[in-house]
Amino acid sequence: MIEEKGILFVLSGPSGVGKGTVRKALFEKDTALQYSISMTTRQKRAGEQEAVDYFYRTKDEFKSMIEENQLLEYAEYVGNYYGTPRKYVEETLAKGNDVFLEIEVQGALQVKENFPEGVFVFLSPPSLEELKNRIVSRGTESDALVTNRLQAAKDEIQLMDAYDYVVVNDQVDKAVEKVQAIVKSEHCKRERVAKQYKKVLEVE
Amino acid sequence: MIEEKGILFVLSGPSGVGKGTVRKALFEKDTALQYSISMTTRQKRAGEQEAVDYFYRTKDEFKSMIEENQLLEYAEYVGNYYGTPRKYVEETLAKGNDVFLEIEVQGALQVKENFPEGVFVFLSPPSLEELKNRIVSRGTESDALVTNRLQAAKDEIQLMDAYDYVVVNDQVDKAVEKVQAIVKSEHCKRERVAKQYKKVLEVE
Repeated sequence: MIEEKGILFVLSGPSGVGKGTVRKALFEKDTALQYSISMTTRQKRAGEQEAVDYFYRTKDEFKSMIEENQLLEYAEYVGNYYGTPRKYVEETLAKGNDVFLEIEVQGALQVKENFPEGVFVFLSPPSLEELKNRIVSRGTESDALVTNRLQAAKDEIQLMDAYDYVVVNDQVDKAVEKVQAIVKSEHCKRERVAKQYKKVLEVE
Repeated sequence: MIEEKGILFVLSGPSGVGKGTVRKALFEKDTALQYSISMTTRQKRAGEQEAVDYFYRTKDEFKSMIEENQLLEYAEYVGNYYGTPRKYVEETLAKGNDVFLEIEVQGALQVKENFPEGVFVFLSPPSLEELKNRIVSRGTESDALVTNRLQAAKDEIQLMDAYDYVVVNDQVDKAVEKVQAIVKSEHCKRERVAKQYKKVLEVE
């Protein structure tokens, strides 16, 4: 009855906060979300598929796309480019499907600049102590590196103000429920739906 | 850890849409919400209690409160006043509890004027046909009265734009889930919580 466009949701937060864990747990519960497929210049690995794992492009192709502003964000990592293609996101949204993107803070800010109509969710650690524990427990980092990563996280937490929502990751299932609530409630936002409801209800 | 003020949620919508049904179903599932207690000049009935069913006041007392802007909204109905006392709402919110108010459209617009920081949810009928059925099935109304009420509902639907969210009441349980999602997600709004998170995370 009501035809609605999808919404781009961006989950981000400091390194070590557990973005990947929350995203995986969310996708186990919610099959309506479409995970954003990245574009990369790295080689396709055995078992990977075009338009499933990544969109695979040459460096020249990728650079052209950067110039033509066809990427919502991109970064270079160990000699290869990775990015989020605008066309794929827009086509998925146009079909009425939500797109979900999990990404580090700098990438999220790029997306916000290129696609401000997205909904930006900042995943926050419950405390600095807890974030430190998570960074340490990942393994082999030296003390100096832990201190560096903690300072980087603090710098990223400062950028919280660019986001629409803050979800604390104290318990994964609670954080997932909050993200699900955000997804559901954003679809009820008056500015998204009022026009169509009024049409259906014949008052316009 | 994070101390948060409560939020005032206002559920409204045209007469016949099922506001009371959704509110009752919501309160059966959600015990953390505090229903807003109205003030009235009507006589206390057997079994009713002050500050549970209503706050009971004389007409003179009520009129003084109107003059002193101590009511978020009020209306006269069959010779008595009914209203929402600002003080009760503010004290409940200050304790960290959410307040939930179910009210007709004109009342909601008064609340919005006096308490714009509230969250305003418009309950919408799925179709005009369905709204007409609900009005007719309530019973004894004449055809002319049904036409009048339907026109009044259409006028109220025009006022949707003053609201933050629109929830369609096609199925009560779905509508309740959406209202619950709105409550949960509003508590994650960055402008409400970022300051406190930054404090806890020692970046401010």
